This record gives sequence, structure tokens and C-alpha cells, in this order.
Amino acid sequence: MNFKDIDTAYLDESTQALVIIDQTKLPASLELMTLTDEHAIYDAIKRLCVRGAPAIGVSAAIGLYVCAYRFEEREKDAFLARLDSCAAYLDSSRPTAVNLHWALERMKVAAHACEGDRENIIARLHDEAIAIRNEDVAMCRAIGEHGLTLVKDGDGILTHCNAGRLATIRYGTALSPIHLGIERGMRFKVFSDETRPLLQGARLSAYELSQAGADVTVICDNMASQVMKNGWVQAIFVGADRIAANGDVCNKIGTSGVAILAKYYGVPFYALAPSSTIDLACKRGSDIPIEQRSPDEVTEMWYENRMAPEGVGVYNPAFDVTEASNVTAIVTERGVIYPPFEVNLKKLFG
Amino acid sequence: MNFKDIDTAYLDESTQALVIIDQTKLPASLELMTLTDEHAIYDAIKRLCVRGAPAIGVSAAIGLYVCAYRFEEREKDAFLARLDSCAAYLDSSRPTAVNLHWALERMKVAAHACEGDRENIIARLHDEAIAIRNEDVAMCRAIGEHGLTLVKDGDGILTHCNAGRLATIRYGTALSPIHLGIERGMRFKVFSDETRPLLQGARLSAYELSQAGADVTVICDNMASQVMKNGWVQAIFVGADRIAANGDVCNKIGTSGVAILAKYYGVPFYALAPSSTIDLACKRGSDIPIEQRSPDEVTEMWYENRMAPEGVGVYNPAFDVTEASNVTAIVTERGVIYPPFEVNLKKLFG
Repeated sequence: MNFKDIDTAYLDESTQALVIIDQTKLPASLELMTLTDEHAIYDAIKRLCVRGAPAIGVSAAIGLYVCAYRFEEREKDAFLARLDSCAAYLDSSRPTAVNLHWALERMKVAAHACEGDRENIIARLHDEAIAIRNEDVAMCRAIGEHGLTLVKDGDGILTHCNAGRLATIRYGTALSPIHLGIERGMRFKVFSDETRPLLQGARLSAYELSQAGADVTVICDNMASQVMKNGWVQAIFVGADRIAANGDVCNKIGTSGVAILAKYYGVPFYALAPSSTIDLACKRGSDIPIEQRSPDEVTEMWYENRMAPEGVGVYNPAFDVTEASNVTAIVTERGVIYPPFEVNLKKLFG
Repeated sequence: MNFKDIDTAYLDESTQALVIIDQTKLPASLELMTLTDEHAIYDAIKRLCVRGAPAIGVSAAIGLYVCAYRFEEREKDAFLARLDSCAAYLDSSRPTAVNLHWALERMKVAAHACEGDRENIIARLHDEAIAIRNEDVAMCRAIGEHGLTLVKDGDGILTHCNAGRLATIRYGTALSPIHLGIERGMRFKVFSDETRPLLQGARLSAYELSQAGADVTVICDNMASQVMKNGWVQAIFVGADRIAANGDVCNKIGTSGVAILAKYYGVPFYALAPSSTIDLACKRGSDIPIEQRSPDEVTEMWYENRMAPEGVGVYNPAFDVTEASNVTAIVTERGVIYPPFEVNLKKLFG
């Protein structure tokens, strides 16, 4: 089983099953989960066996299809009612994941718009899920193409968290230029922030990049300053969870610090994300509520003992906002957008 | 057993033993080690049961005394020869610790300068060890007094690593103003960077500060940007391993990033350290060699599994250099020194 040849999530046509890479097992072992049952799919999304907004969206779409394929309801209305309740159930697996809801809605709309019988609807759901999957791959590839224009062979690139192929189906967003460049024989020296508290950089980015043959070096988050000072980094590539109309970028906690360091050391800072991430209704980053997560992630996930004393305070924000003034450019599947973001984002997406 | 009442290392006069807090057991449990044997003392220093340059220096001085107290050599020359070989042995426990060597040399000089017999030398060694200990406490307290002039009641203070009482005998260096302020009824809101890879901030600073009754919040290193952005921090207090003639500060990895963030957010950044840390022979920070440590610290000290894939590159510098231009002031036991450091350090210490 070669990681390079396996999509993060896919439809196995021979068994009509959703197959995903179990990311909770990485980097220790590469294991696939074959899912046909709605409870198992719900559980896999909830437990982060599949994570990353695009990968969750595609998994949910394929997942809804493989469930519908097995629905026992023969009558069209009953079948559609069952489909809607299954979609609502899957949608509740991670309530804040926008792509999850979006993909399931799109599947429902396709099914309800279908004029034919049960079998026609199932065929329609199949095609819609595959279309969502194909669009994701094309979107990531396009981000990669645009991102690749910003670096040259041999460059050092620093990334934070995992906005890689494991967060999508193939290529990734922030890491897409690196994967695409490697396909073309280019070489990059990649520095992967481990990304505390959940270590997506050490566990996932380092895994997928080294499997792709990249020269990847894991660092603790607090070493990024020294790495940039050493002159080892020519570009920062990060993903984004949401981009405000003024160009403020909401992304994994720690991103804003990387951007400030990059500015200090004169390294360009790029946010790479699908255009669906751009939220023109959101005026500025300070309007984005920052999710606070469990203190346990900071204090208990190390060794056999707690790493901080009992009863001590913990602040554990999941995201932070990088001010637009520290962002060199935003890269989407539609191209590279430079400041003034307020004007240029509106021009392209308004 | 109340942590607040126990020095990090001390001489138990009733048993003539060196007693240290076993820091490898913190924060899970507070355990003391009673040491009278040179091999046990060597081992305790080597295994980081006691760490922090001042605490190591005092432990070695008391340690050499408690060993000498038990030497069987009755004849003065044989006794001194035994003392020298014991000192050389203890000195080799952590070859790069400057204070360790300094304290042992000082003990040896005192012994050799002593005109009396074996018993007189032992008494002299006792007094010299206690003097070294007392000077450390006075030095830390003076740093605290000067540091306390830089903050006011209710301020938020962010610190990195552990330059606290656990790195000294009492008070600490960077944390001395906080401990001293608490003694006087002041309240601070302290943010402790966990300080990857070895987590001295989460394990040790959080422990000693919460034991002292401080309001302490542990954060991952990459959250410092958000904490400063929130306006929660009025001062940064960090220690220093070495300060160059131009004011460049060598300290735990990650410190330089904190300083750059502090400058960006307009938060004053203070390095607090004994004047022995100032090395006027060292012109600038770039002259200081940066120790590289084992990749295992980054990749393997988490959970039961490795947190990064096998074979991936790791960069693990133990220290970084904060440029003098990002340092608001340097605080020693002799006062607060402002820029231009090149001139003002020379004036005070030249």
C-alpha cells in the first residue's frame, strides 16, 4: 500500500463503499477504513479520522451516497425522507465544519431535483459526489499552479499546521505547490512547524511531504524565528479557515505569529485557500469568533503524566487572525491576489 | 511539605547533606533528594534533577562540601588532592554549565588558600558554600527589586522557559519580580509559554508560580501572539544564558520570536539575569555558538508513539539570540540598563 497512490477519501466502485485514510493512526501506521454505514461514517468524521474542511466535505458527499445506495426504502418519497434524515445526522458530526454542511446540502438538492425514480436518484447522488470530489482535486491543483509561480526550485518553504493533501483529496491547499512542484522534478526544503497543541504539522504535514519525497524538517513552533533568521526560508505557505473582506486571514493558532516573524525577516507570507474560504460578508478578522478548545489538549497529551500542574489556568484558542497588513498575497484557485485586498478581493469575488 | 518553604537546593546542617528538589518529578510530585555521595550528586546534576545555572552552581558548591566533610584523607595534602579530583569529577557532570565550573573553582581556591588543618579547611568549605548560596539569594532578590519597578499591580506578564526560583535557590531571575511582588501583596496575571521541546514553562514555571499563589495561565508557544493581541500582557520577563557586549541576548529557543512579537504589539521586553551573564568579551550574539540537541526531544516525547514520522529531518537548537534592538532593557542585580547597550553595559561592567 503506497500512500502516494491513495486519495485521502474515495469511493470504492467495486464495493460501493467510502474508503478513507485513518488519520488518527498517522504517522505510526497507514490504515484504511472502509465505511458503508451511516453511524460508522458519523463516527469517523467526529473522531477526526478524516479532517480538513475539503476532505470532510468530499467524505460526507461520498458517505451520503454509499448510505443511500443501501437504503431499503423503495418508494421515492420515503427514500428522499430517509436521505434527508441521514444527511442531517452526518451534518451533526462536526457542527462547525462549513464544507460538511455545504456538501450535504448540495447532495440533497441534487437528489430532490431528480425527476426519475429511486434508481435514478441513486445514480444522480453517485455523480454529484464524484463531481464534488473532482472539483476538489481541480481546485487544489489550480491553487498549486498559482502558488508555484511564487517560488523557485531549491527554495526553502515554511508551513504551519496541515493544509496539505490529507486535508483535501489530493495536493492540498498550502502544500499543493510543493506536491505539484515535486511531480515536476523541483526540490524544496520544507520546514514544518509541529503546530501545538495537536501537532498536525509534525504528524501529518511531515508525513505526507516525506512520503512525497520532499526534504522536510520538523521544528517546534518557537524555532521558526531562528529558521528564518538563518536565511533558510524564502516563502511561508499556510492555509486559511476564513478570509475576511479586508484580507485578514483566520487560520490555525500560531499563524499570526509566523506572519509577524516573516514580515520582520522580510520573508513573503502567502495564504493559500479555496475561494469558498473568502467571506466578503465578514468585514474584518476581529468579527470572527475564536473557538476555545479543551485545556486537556495543552496539559495532558504528553508522556504518562500531565505536563502542567493540576488547577493551573490554560488558554487554548484553536485559531488566530493574521492581519491583512502582514499577508503578502492570497492564493486561490482563481489566481494570486495582492493588496489592497479590500479592493482586489471584491473585484474578483464580489 | 510546603514547596514555598523549601529552597531549590540547601545544606541540611543536621546531617551535613545536600538536599535538592528533584525537578524531574515536577509537576506531578514534590520529592526531595538527600545527597552525600559524589556519584549521587554527579548523577543528580547530569539527569537535570537540579537545573538552571545558579541552582547548579550552588548545588555543586554545597555538594563538594558535603563530600569533603566525609573524605577519609587525614593528611592535608592528600585531602586537598582528593578535593581537587572530586571537584573535577563534579565539574564534568554538565560540561557547558559555566556556573558549575565557577562555583567549584571558587571552592577549590578557598580550600587551598586556607592556612589551617583539615578541619579548618572543611569549615572554610562550609562557609564558602553558604556564601555562594547567600549571594545567589541576594542577587536574585536584587534583580526582583529592580524588575518590580518596571511593572505595576495587576499587570499581565508573559514569560518563556523557567528562569524562576527552580533555576536558582529562591526568587529566580526573570520570575523574581513576580515572587517578590506576591510577597508584597501585588497581583499579576502571568502567562507561561509551555516552551517546547522540554516544556520547562508548563512543567516548572507554572508549578512554582501557582505554588506561590500567582494567577498563571499556560499557553502553547504559538499562542503568545494572540495573548499579546488581546492586550493581556504589559511586560515580557525572560532570563538569559549570555548577554553580548552589544546587548544581544542568548536565551532559550523561542525567546527571539517572543521579542519580535512584543515589539510588534508594543509590549516592553525585559531580559533579567545576573551580571555574570554579561560577557563583554563577546561582541555580538552571532558570535555565540548555538547548541543543537537531540531530535528525539522534538519527535518522541509525546504519547506512546513518535509524533513525527521516522526518518524525517529535525532541527532542534537549544537557544536563540534576541537582537538588542528588540530588547527594551536588561535587568541585573545592579539595576536596569537601557539602550544604547554597547555604551551602558560597558559603563557599568567594563
